[in-house]
Amino acid sequence: MRILVLHGPNLNLLGRREPEVYGKTTLAEIDARLLERAAELGVSLESHQSNHEGVLIDLLHAAMDRCGGVIINPGGLTHTSVALRDAISSIGLPTIEVHLSNVHQREAFRRSSYVADVCVAQIAGLGARGYELALEALVERLR
Amino acid sequence: MRILVLHGPNLNLLGRREPEVYGKTTLAEIDARLLERAAELGVSLESHQSNHEGVLIDLLHAAMDRCGGVIINPGGLTHTSVALRDAISSIGLPTIEVHLSNVHQREAFRRSSYVADVCVAQIAGLGARGYELALEALVERLR
Amino acid sequence: MRILVLHGPNLNLLGRREPEVYGKTTLAEIDARLLERAAELGVSLESHQSNHEGVLIDLLHAAMDRCGGVIINPGGLTHTSVALRDAISSIGLPTIEVHLSNVHQREAFRRSSYVADVCVAQIAGLGARGYELALEALVERLR
Amino acid sequence: MRILVLHGPNLNLLGRREPEVYGKTTLAEIDARLLERAAELGVSLESHQSNHEGVLIDLLHAAMDRCGGVIINPGGLTHTSVALRDAISSIGLPTIEVHLSNVHQREAFRRSSYVADVCVAQIAGLGARGYELALEALVERLR
Amino acid sequence: MRILVLHGPNLNLLGRREPEVYGKTTLAEIDARLLERAAELGVSLESHQSNHEGVLIDLLHAAMDRCGGVIINPGGLTHTSVALRDAISSIGLPTIEVHLSNVHQREAFRRSSYVADVCVAQIAGLGARGYELALEALVERLR
Amino acid sequence: MRILVLHGPNLNLLGRREPEVYGKTTLAEIDARLLERAAELGVSLESHQSNHEGVLIDLLHAAMDRCGGVIINPGGLTHTSVALRDAISSIGLPTIEVHLSNVHQREAFRRSSYVADVCVAQIAGLGARGYELALEALVERLR
Amino acid sequence: MRILVLHGPNLNLLGRREPEVYGKTTLAEIDARLLERAAELGVSLESHQSNHEGVLIDLLHAAMDRCGGVIINPGGLTHTSVALRDAISSIGLPTIEVHLSNVHQREAFRRSSYVADVCVAQIAGLGARGYELALEALVERLR
Amino acid sequence: MRILVLHGPNLNLLGRREPEVYGKTTLAEIDARLLERAAELGVSLESHQSNHEGVLIDLLHAAMDRCGGVIINPGGLTHTSVALRDAISSIGLPTIEVHLSNVHQREAFRRSSYVADVCVAQIAGLGARGYELALEALVERLR
Amino acid sequence: MRILVLHGPNLNLLGRREPEVYGKTTLAEIDARLLERAAELGVSLESHQSNHEGVLIDLLHAAMDRCGGVIINPGGLTHTSVALRDAISSIGLPTIEVHLSNVHQREAFRRSSYVADVCVAQIAGLGARGYELALEALVERLR
Amino acid sequence: MRILVLHGPNLNLLGRREPEVYGKTTLAEIDARLLERAAELGVSLESHQSNHEGVLIDLLHAAMDRCGGVIINPGGLTHTSVALRDAISSIGLPTIEVHLSNVHQREAFRRSSYVADVCVAQIAGLGARGYELALEALVERLR
Amino acid sequence: MRILVLHGPNLNLLGRREPEVYGKTTLAEIDARLLERAAELGVSLESHQSNHEGVLIDLLHAAMDRCGGVIINPGGLTHTSVALRDAISSIGLPTIEVHLSNVHQREAFRRSSYVADVCVAQIAGLGARGYELALEALVERLR
Amino acid sequence: MRILVLHGPNLNLLGRREPEVYGKTTLAEIDARLLERAAELGVSLESHQSNHEGVLIDLLHAAMDRCGGVIINPGGLTHTSVALRDAISSIGLPTIEVHLSNVHQREAFRRSSYVADVCVAQIAGLGARGYELALEALVERLR
Repeated sequence: MRILVLHGPNLNLLGRREPEVYGKTTLAEIDARLLERAAELGVSLESHQSNHEGVLIDLLHAAMDRCGGVIINPGGLTHTSVALRDAISSIGLPTIEVHLSNVHQREAFRRSSYVADVCVAQIAGLGARGYELALEALVERLR
Repeated sequence: MRILVLHGPNLNLLGRREPEVYGKTTLAEIDARLLERAAELGVSLESHQSNHEGVLIDLLHAAMDRCGGVIINPGGLTHTSVALRDAISSIGLPTIEVHLSNVHQREAFRRSSYVADVCVAQIAGLGARGYELALEALVERLR
Repeated sequence: MRILVLHGPNLNLLGRREPEVYGKTTLAEIDARLLERAAELGVSLESHQSNHEGVLIDLLHAAMDRCGGVIINPGGLTHTSVALRDAISSIGLPTIEVHLSNVHQREAFRRSSYVADVCVAQIAGLGARGYELALEALVERLR
Repeated sequence: MRILVLHGPNLNLLGRREPEVYGKTTLAEIDARLLERAAELGVSLESHQSNHEGVLIDLLHAAMDRCGGVIINPGGLTHTSVALRDAISSIGLPTIEVHLSNVHQREAFRRSSYVADVCVAQIAGLGARGYELALEALVERLR
Repeated sequence: MRILVLHGPNLNLLGRREPEVYGKTTLAEIDARLLERAAELGVSLESHQSNHEGVLIDLLHAAMDRCGGVIINPGGLTHTSVALRDAISSIGLPTIEVHLSNVHQREAFRRSSYVADVCVAQIAGLGARGYELALEALVERLR
Repeated sequence: MRILVLHGPNLNLLGRREPEVYGKTTLAEIDARLLERAAELGVSLESHQSNHEGVLIDLLHAAMDRCGGVIINPGGLTHTSVALRDAISSIGLPTIEVHLSNVHQREAFRRSSYVADVCVAQIAGLGARGYELALEALVERLR
Repeated sequence: MRILVLHGPNLNLLGRREPEVYGKTTLAEIDARLLERAAELGVSLESHQSNHEGVLIDLLHAAMDRCGGVIINPGGLTHTSVALRDAISSIGLPTIEVHLSNVHQREAFRRSSYVADVCVAQIAGLGARGYELALEALVERLR
Repeated sequence: MRILVLHGPNLNLLGRREPEVYGKTTLAEIDARLLERAAELGVSLESHQSNHEGVLIDLLHAAMDRCGGVIINPGGLTHTSVALRDAISSIGLPTIEVHLSNVHQREAFRRSSYVADVCVAQIAGLGARGYELALEALVERLR
Repeated sequence: MRILVLHGPNLNLLGRREPEVYGKTTLAEIDARLLERAAELGVSLESHQSNHEGVLIDLLHAAMDRCGGVIINPGGLTHTSVALRDAISSIGLPTIEVHLSNVHQREAFRRSSYVADVCVAQIAGLGARGYELALEALVERLR
Repeated sequence: MRILVLHGPNLNLLGRREPEVYGKTTLAEIDARLLERAAELGVSLESHQSNHEGVLIDLLHAAMDRCGGVIINPGGLTHTSVALRDAISSIGLPTIEVHLSNVHQREAFRRSSYVADVCVAQIAGLGARGYELALEALVERLR
Repeated sequence: MRILVLHGPNLNLLGRREPEVYGKTTLAEIDARLLERAAELGVSLESHQSNHEGVLIDLLHAAMDRCGGVIINPGGLTHTSVALRDAISSIGLPTIEVHLSNVHQREAFRRSSYVADVCVAQIAGLGARGYELALEALVERLR
Repeated sequence: MRILVLHGPNLNLLGRREPEVYGKTTLAEIDARLLERAAELGVSLESHQSNHEGVLIDLLHAAMDRCGGVIINPGGLTHTSVALRDAISSIGLPTIEVHLSNVHQREAFRRSSYVADVCVAQIAGLGARGYELALEALVERLR
């Protein structure tokens, strides 16, 4: 069993900018922890970050035959990309949406999501820890 | 350290009705698992269910001096109760909002929440497992 | 066969206040007529009034295994209570919504209802007579 | 005393199409039952169906001096015809609005009604039985 | 002449929490001052706080024959309770709405009120002093 | 030069119903005055009333080659008929919209008009006198 | 009998600017014609133009005891001034609203009017001729 | 196999008015071409135009047992007629919606359609050619 | 200590018009009482009324260095003037907004206020008495 | 004459996923048929698919001097991309918008389109056949 | 060539109040710099500030024959004055709108502007420097 | 000091298409002028254009450590890209938004901007000149 982890636009800056909002953990550190946790759970995991909507869609398509589930933090695309939503919906893999901050506490436009109703679950506001919880829950679900 | 777990209206019916939507686990089973997990984490935990908005608010107030954090599934009150929101906000304890189903996939009125922006995090769509993840995350945060 | 009749907030004042709007019939008189009519139809009937959302929900839950159908006038909760809606929906009994006045002729906020689309029918504007018609229709439907 | 019963657009198809939604009763059967019930109640009754808004308005006008009350199921015109509303309002006869299905459970545009607030009452979701209840209630009111 | 003073959800926490927003005065102190002022004005006064919508409605009903006017701070129920509005409207006593903070300066949802247009006046933003001004104005009006 | 005058749904009831709103003048009297005034102005005039949207559209089409301008009171169709709007727009004759009452003082839905922006002018609130003023203004414009 | 005619902001530019929209007639010419027509009708008339909301309100107040009716073209204030609306409403004189162009054919914001529902009638789209028709209708009404 | 072609209000004016918008082709010419094309495709076809909503509904009902599919251009009724929508939906025949102009480039109210979601397809902006393409597609679909 | 009292458009008519709505007290009487009450409280007070938005703004600016607080009834400008709001906000003096009637019981557009969230408090519905209460509260606050 | 065919995000999955919604035809088969049909019509045709908004825009720019018209199915970008709209508008080539499914029957957000009003026509709901019809119509138009 | 510079309500307070928001530069200093820059550019310039909508409109009218262009900062009137918009539009001079702060970063109601679409350009958020850039751009455009 | 200049989708077509709207200046010419002006001001400058949202975000990230400020014309992405907004916000450099045309004079959807409130200023409607003014203002600000 293989899990795809996708990080959307601007998440490559994690830990370098606005640490008071997003914490000091870098994306590399998050991915390292996830790999470690995946090993413990006995699953394989691959992780990608991209600022390009099209690249994220290509990666989702490529996962269709190779992965069993997806964890995605679509960043700002959450609120604006029907194409990304359609990609998640098309490939038919169980997908969990993760947000580092509690998007419900921020600007009004961050409350609407094109992605939420094609995902099986949403975790928001638990920082980097949210990814690990998503991984655990996804693996349980797949088993 | 003591954690308050609150279950809102209709959650007492869990496992008895609409198992295809909400699963077969009863509320008693969920609470039992949470107590077990709390013991492993070295914290104490108390759990209540009520169909009364006022009772839930009273319980939150009572927790103010006795608990360190709250896990709440406000059920239908999520979308209609400013009073509950004010109670969460007033007592000043870190609170995590949990929903069994992915509320974002259901009726439009379930997408708005009076509670979300006074909670530190939201977990939706992971069924009974969501409570356990919330407990882990809350304990980590409090430490 | 047993029918539950529920009267929501402020309906206990019927006949005492604003008789030009709601008529002079008291709630006790309405219940008396309903009991009489139920006897004629060969069904048993129990009736409750409460100003507490939580009490109404508790009564609905209690009816789940004891009654075959529900007649409800949720009063002002019609327009504001998702929890009440969820209770009706959860117990899975056929429910008819009754309003004494024609709610469609009143303030704009009385036109929306959280309850209407989980009920099988709605009768509005026929005063106390509406309850009797609801009872007849519900009994026919259950047979 | 004479009652006018009006059936709006598409109701002539009753019983022939979509019986799983609207039942197998035809409009002729509904009218036959209503005539029978009217005879029992000691009132006369005439019934018309038309797919033409203008014809329905003409019939309402013609009833002004000949009838004492109206039962109307305006079908799709419920949601779009101010002219029909004005006709009901102009002739000044007590009118009860009937819908076979619970319109509140269907598409959003079926929730708004131009007719509801010029009628004295609304019955929705009780199928053909709704007409009979309306007849009984209207006759009582007129007496 | 007797005046009913009602304090809605969360107001029991006054003085204990968020003093920078709501001041250090406790609800007991407010009530004490009101009793004193009532004595000076030659009227009697009773005061209640509840976090339960249903209890507040019950208290309003009970006041119908015993009191001449009402001062109410409905807290979060201001924005969500049609049932409370109907209770105020039903008992027909002149009622003044009081808010400690200027609700018009806060979140958008606090700007709408189900209660405002069935009250004779509104005082907002004057802290605990607002209750006294309401008492003076209500007594003047009743004389 | 020939002018077409069209009266929409329910205007045939003028003078018979609700005289406190619409006055005691009948439609026949209005048409008689208009014919008289047309004679004085040296133009011919034909007038029709119909409760049928389709008939009104047919009459507008028929006027295309025979009339120089139109005066129309579309009644309730003002607010709901795109087809009528398209008819006015298609025939390309200067058209003046007349309303007996000041539609801007009535229900919210009477404020929107599908017809207003394909007419050259609107006169509302001057009762039967509005037709005469429209006739004078239209004749002047055509000369 | 004395009539007040008020021209709002920018109407002093009439005839000098955008003649293809507003025609070549100047405001002085309009006023001259109105004076002439008033003389024929045996009433006196005074006319003012101002670009100042406050001046228009002062003039309306001053008319309260000296005039029998008002003709007003509020220009851009039509859509933004509640104060002007209140002035018209307060002085209690029958008022007719005039617009040179058909405001219903222009920008969306010109469709809403704070003034329309406190006036007895509205004439729009008849150019300078609209004032004369308003004068005739107002005099008739006052007699 | 028989196809019903329905042309709604104002389409009888095609080719006579506003040729710069709708082209010079008349409705008779369109129907002639469609008959020719139907013959080539080996299906029979009947075509009607009406300015009356009710007539269009009657024709749809009549087609229920005689035709295999429908091509409809509802003109202005597209945006206002729930009754027409219900007729299409009730008869259960595959229906294609055609518009001569690209309705999406015109007034905002032309963008909403009561008909679109009960039709199998929509063709807009291809002028008279759109009907032929609809015919080809419908015949293919029926085979 | 000096207090500025500002009365906005149309308030000069107080007591002369619509006494059933606004009472018989004139503005001069209100100001006289306020002066008297100010003397008792040991503060000086100046009062102005204007129908001109610009004059009110000039007066606010002039108060910046001479007064300690402001009581304002902006009349119709409450709902339309961002400029007045900016003036209140710019001068930085504590300001209390007063309305004679309960604006929350009137037309929908009177519910929104540009001024409310830059004022420290709002008193509405207490008639002329509201000014005195505002004066007392403002003086207390300033001390 | 050369035609550009553009397929937007996720269309590369055609035939592989959700065949019950989109059919079993693959994108390669659609393109093959289009090439064949283009040959019959005597025009050349090039076809591209991309999940990248930017790539689609680049391809449109490149077509500006090489192609005579465009057929585009923008997929999910239809509803979210102003940049794509601007690209179509900037290059000035006649463009036809194609959707496989009837977008009007799906989620509300699929009803709005940034692209529709800069295209000459729209075909929706005819599956792969829609492309061929678009090709025929576009070639006719260009000739 | 002569340029009119207009400063709207509250801008006379510049430099005296809220320097942390608007800077320490006074309006007199801004005007002095603009005069200097105008001299360098070889144009004459006049500058006015008023808190009165009517005065600003009068000044725009007066500029019609004497100036070649306008720079305006309408302050709070930006969002509320159709009359000011009409004045700018009527005089037909190229006008540039300037805001000291970035209005797009402030309250929601500051995002809408009645003035923006009758101006040729908008500069916001550059403080006093914005006026100079506007002057340079306007002069270039006029040459 | 180094300035990044970013041109979004479709701006590469400048000067080649729709010169009546956007002028004849090409993007190369704009960049040349900016380089020249930057040299005069003693700063270095780099400029990029891309039709790809992701590329623009990558370029902003790359500027974080190498540039002191940004000038951006996001083209159509202005209105649809939260990801671009987040990139600007994340890198923390002062950014000025430039639009060639006055976006406030165009379609409604161009009035909203995801970017405006994370930029320090906005210049719109001054054509290519707007970039130079932005450069001057940005350099001043950085010094």
